[in-house]
Amino acid sequence: MTNVKGIAASSGYAIAKAYKLDMPDLTVTRTTVEDTEAEIALYNKSVAAVKLEIAAIKEAATKNLSEEEAAVFDAHAQILEDPELQSQVEAKINDEKLCAPAALEDVANLFITMFSSMDDAYFKERAADVRDVTTRLKANLLGKSLPNPALIDEEVVIIAHDLTPSDTAQLNKNLVRGFITDIGGRTSHSAILARSMEIPAVVATNVITETVNDGDMVVLDGLTGDVFVNPDEETVSTYEAKRKEFEDYKAELKTLKTAESVSTDGHKVLLVANIGSPNDIEAIKQNGAEGVGLFRTEFLYMESDELPTEDSQYEAYKTVLENVNGPVVVRTMDIGGDKKLKALPVPEEMNPFLGVRAIRLCFQREEVFRTQLRALLRASVYGDLKIMFPMIATVEEFKKAKGILLDEKAKLVAEGVKVSDSIEVGIMIEIPAAAVLADQFAKVVDFFSIGTNDLIQYTFAADRMSSTINYLYQPFNPSILRLVKNTIDASHREGKWTGMCGEMAGEALAAPLLLGLGLDEFSMSATSILAQRKRIRELSYEESKKVAEKATTELSTMEEVVELVKAETGIEG
Amino acid sequence: MTNVKGIAASSGYAIAKAYKLDMPDLTVTRTTVEDTEAEIALYNKSVAAVKLEIAAIKEAATKNLSEEEAAVFDAHAQILEDPELQSQVEAKINDEKLCAPAALEDVANLFITMFSSMDDAYFKERAADVRDVTTRLKANLLGKSLPNPALIDEEVVIIAHDLTPSDTAQLNKNLVRGFITDIGGRTSHSAILARSMEIPAVVATNVITETVNDGDMVVLDGLTGDVFVNPDEETVSTYEAKRKEFEDYKAELKTLKTAESVSTDGHKVLLVANIGSPNDIEAIKQNGAEGVGLFRTEFLYMESDELPTEDSQYEAYKTVLENVNGPVVVRTMDIGGDKKLKALPVPEEMNPFLGVRAIRLCFQREEVFRTQLRALLRASVYGDLKIMFPMIATVEEFKKAKGILLDEKAKLVAEGVKVSDSIEVGIMIEIPAAAVLADQFAKVVDFFSIGTNDLIQYTFAADRMSSTINYLYQPFNPSILRLVKNTIDASHREGKWTGMCGEMAGEALAAPLLLGLGLDEFSMSATSILAQRKRIRELSYEESKKVAEKATTELSTMEEVVELVKAETGIEG
Repeated sequence: MTNVKGIAASSGYAIAKAYKLDMPDLTVTRTTVEDTEAEIALYNKSVAAVKLEIAAIKEAATKNLSEEEAAVFDAHAQILEDPELQSQVEAKINDEKLCAPAALEDVANLFITMFSSMDDAYFKERAADVRDVTTRLKANLLGKSLPNPALIDEEVVIIAHDLTPSDTAQLNKNLVRGFITDIGGRTSHSAILARSMEIPAVVATNVITETVNDGDMVVLDGLTGDVFVNPDEETVSTYEAKRKEFEDYKAELKTLKTAESVSTDGHKVLLVANIGSPNDIEAIKQNGAEGVGLFRTEFLYMESDELPTEDSQYEAYKTVLENVNGPVVVRTMDIGGDKKLKALPVPEEMNPFLGVRAIRLCFQREEVFRTQLRALLRASVYGDLKIMFPMIATVEEFKKAKGILLDEKAKLVAEGVKVSDSIEVGIMIEIPAAAVLADQFAKVVDFFSIGTNDLIQYTFAADRMSSTINYLYQPFNPSILRLVKNTIDASHREGKWTGMCGEMAGEALAAPLLLGLGLDEFSMSATSILAQRKRIRELSYEESKKVAEKATTELSTMEEVVELVKAETGIEG
Repeated sequence: MTNVKGIAASSGYAIAKAYKLDMPDLTVTRTTVEDTEAEIALYNKSVAAVKLEIAAIKEAATKNLSEEEAAVFDAHAQILEDPELQSQVEAKINDEKLCAPAALEDVANLFITMFSSMDDAYFKERAADVRDVTTRLKANLLGKSLPNPALIDEEVVIIAHDLTPSDTAQLNKNLVRGFITDIGGRTSHSAILARSMEIPAVVATNVITETVNDGDMVVLDGLTGDVFVNPDEETVSTYEAKRKEFEDYKAELKTLKTAESVSTDGHKVLLVANIGSPNDIEAIKQNGAEGVGLFRTEFLYMESDELPTEDSQYEAYKTVLENVNGPVVVRTMDIGGDKKLKALPVPEEMNPFLGVRAIRLCFQREEVFRTQLRALLRASVYGDLKIMFPMIATVEEFKKAKGILLDEKAKLVAEGVKVSDSIEVGIMIEIPAAAVLADQFAKVVDFFSIGTNDLIQYTFAADRMSSTINYLYQPFNPSILRLVKNTIDASHREGKWTGMCGEMAGEALAAPLLLGLGLDEFSMSATSILAQRKRIRELSYEESKKVAEKATTELSTMEEVVELVKAETGIEG
């Protein structure tokens, strides 16, 4: 039995025979041609053939993938017909009298190098798409056929140096139990597709293709990144049990899509999603979110070098409000800190996390803030909009921000624009000062949303991006739990509510603590919702209250809290 | 009546005639000489004469200044006899056949430019000393006499473009009522001397020499930086009243040097000093400090490119412990953040204030920490030593630091070294997590010392060095007062005590709040102690408790707190 370690890229377990996806030799013999016109005709014939091939793969892929996911093949079709690609290949053939495969290879390498050299994850992935399409074209020109995983007729784990998006898309979910690659990363195209297809995957093993022979038995652990080649019987039976448990668990989660988020003793909470753009609406529907607890609006400012217009913002907010069934909490822009913007320059600061960001920047660039507020107010009639201001430290700051909002509302109403009269206005609790003074804030705001990522960073005075002091990122330290408790209690005393939109809200161990502290709304990545709902439905509110009470009054360290939760609830981190 | 504004450099009021300190024309006619040996002899004669002059000024100065302050003239004498200066002037005369005044001027300018160009306040001040000495030498060479304020025979306010240290030293305290200059700053030599001589001063007015004529009546406000030239009667009588009040106040403060720091209803607190090196011992004695509440040890690490040895640290700690009558709280090194060190490099961080500093750095460089602890332990037998660790965020960090201390103590004892058995070990409360969890910390530490400068910065997530968001430096915000209260209450419940060593402890408005919250020890700049003692002696503890209670439970903004304190106590900010 050999153990190989890689990066866990898609969760689940697989136990099956290895199927090595070997690429044919596509070495090009560089020859020159006399009849360049004929060579170009040959190239065009290949393009047409590959176009049909891609369409066929897309057709096959739609059985396994959502329409959106299958759209990658439209991107491939576009690359195939890209006039720049076409004209550069033609020029190579005409000017250098190169044969079509060599001309294609040269141009493809140029494109790939160009995209790869850009310091941007998006373009690096585009390089993979170009490689994928041009490889297919080259194979066609050379008269070779690419491996066709669609022909697999038994349960297998795919072993490959790398999987192209079209390879991944051709995998038959009924027979392919997982895949393992030499290269890649958690955010590479194939990994993302694997997750959405719910096929377990381990990537970046470096050595899997040289370690495994076709037909070897393979165990794949998509949660730890472990691979066992030719496992002993004990390993096989251990993993068979794990796989069974995991599949039962997944099946159970699916049944919870429309279930209430309610404890065993009837205490109901709201499980909602964090989203970054209207593109995330589909994911929240699939994962049973009861609304949106944090709509980050930075994407509007990040996607262009110009500031977004009021109308473009309005359209984005309207789309989300119309399509989400439930409350939508929109955070006004949180630029600054680690998020820099060309259109909204912030002076160089010694400690940007302690500098001019979020609401502080909005006060300095009030016209930008007002534009966003107008767009939000105009969109408010399309759903249950709640507006929240980030990085509020003092009561005056909230009053000032709300004053500007009311001012814009009055102007719109005077202009005859319809604006909702039931917009709740709240604040992020992410600065210790606000958490400590929550009772005073609760008198003037409609709700709180605790942003744990920043709250932890400031409460411990420890940069969450710094790897040297990451031992101080302590969501379960009693000091953090006390600030959370103080915030929730303060809101309830004034008849208001408290949500949480930091990473902590989706963590397993946090479920009993936050439930017990009385948190009203848990906002998290859509993909975490069903698992958290399952946990909450298995917890007693009264028992959770006792756990939370003990953690906030008697314990002194995060370690003690984690031990307590594990002992009292059986939940593992 | 003309109003001129400058920087208030030394407090107090003056009303007197203007005395303009005019410099003679010291323009040098650049001539060449044949007999260079004679010219060098001439120069040496001048050096000898000026040496006597400086000695005479020093003699006169010792009547007005402390020995330490008068030591600036020893520095002048040294510059005068500096072999580098001497040899460069001689070389100029020999090589370029320049007359002595021109040779001196060239060399002096070279020295002044060199010192001025260094980006360091110390060297910039040394440039002023060189200018002072060489000007005196040039005047002697040119046969001119410099103004001699020692000849003043009536009450005056000195008006000058700038005052050299020797000018300032020659001022007769009995007749010179103040001074006003065109240039300078709060930390220039003259300003520091003015403060220690207790002569009111306004500097950096830009225009005072061109605005005032000799003999004009002048009113000087050393608290606001206001100057009134030829004031009307009302202004004169207003300022005469102010001056009287200020003088009475200063006289009263002097009587409080040995008084207890006790409220009108008998609640006693400790007023102690923050010090930065053994040089500050004299100042704390003069200002009636009851001990040292914060001995910053960074000076040991800052003064050289090498790390300090255990013995050099031991000597510094021993000196302070032997000479201070009362407790001495030593903070272990707080390097990192804005304090960088050649000998102890910290990696570049995106947010150094949220990075590896103080105890975090000590854990990474444990041998450096152990050296400091050994030096402290060895010195502990010479006084009432208390050790405190900075930037503690978790209970584990304290336990780890204390464990290292006990380990070093055990080693020393095993080596036969005497170590005190009554050293209290505490922590700075400057990270919100520690303030929130003070009850748990109180079980394991001997005392707390609240570092408000950092506590405020982290609690508001606002860099205290950033000028754009300095509105968020809010010592009187109820959130800060609550954290202070939580810390004090937690310590008292466990029979421990709490001090404060941030700037807030010395502030006027803080006196009733901190007294009312039950703070045990106020640590501040030595020069703030007597004024704070007077305030505390005029406050009722029971009334202060009510003010603090209201501020921490009912109010929501710093503005409201400030208004409350002013209304209830009559104290002005």
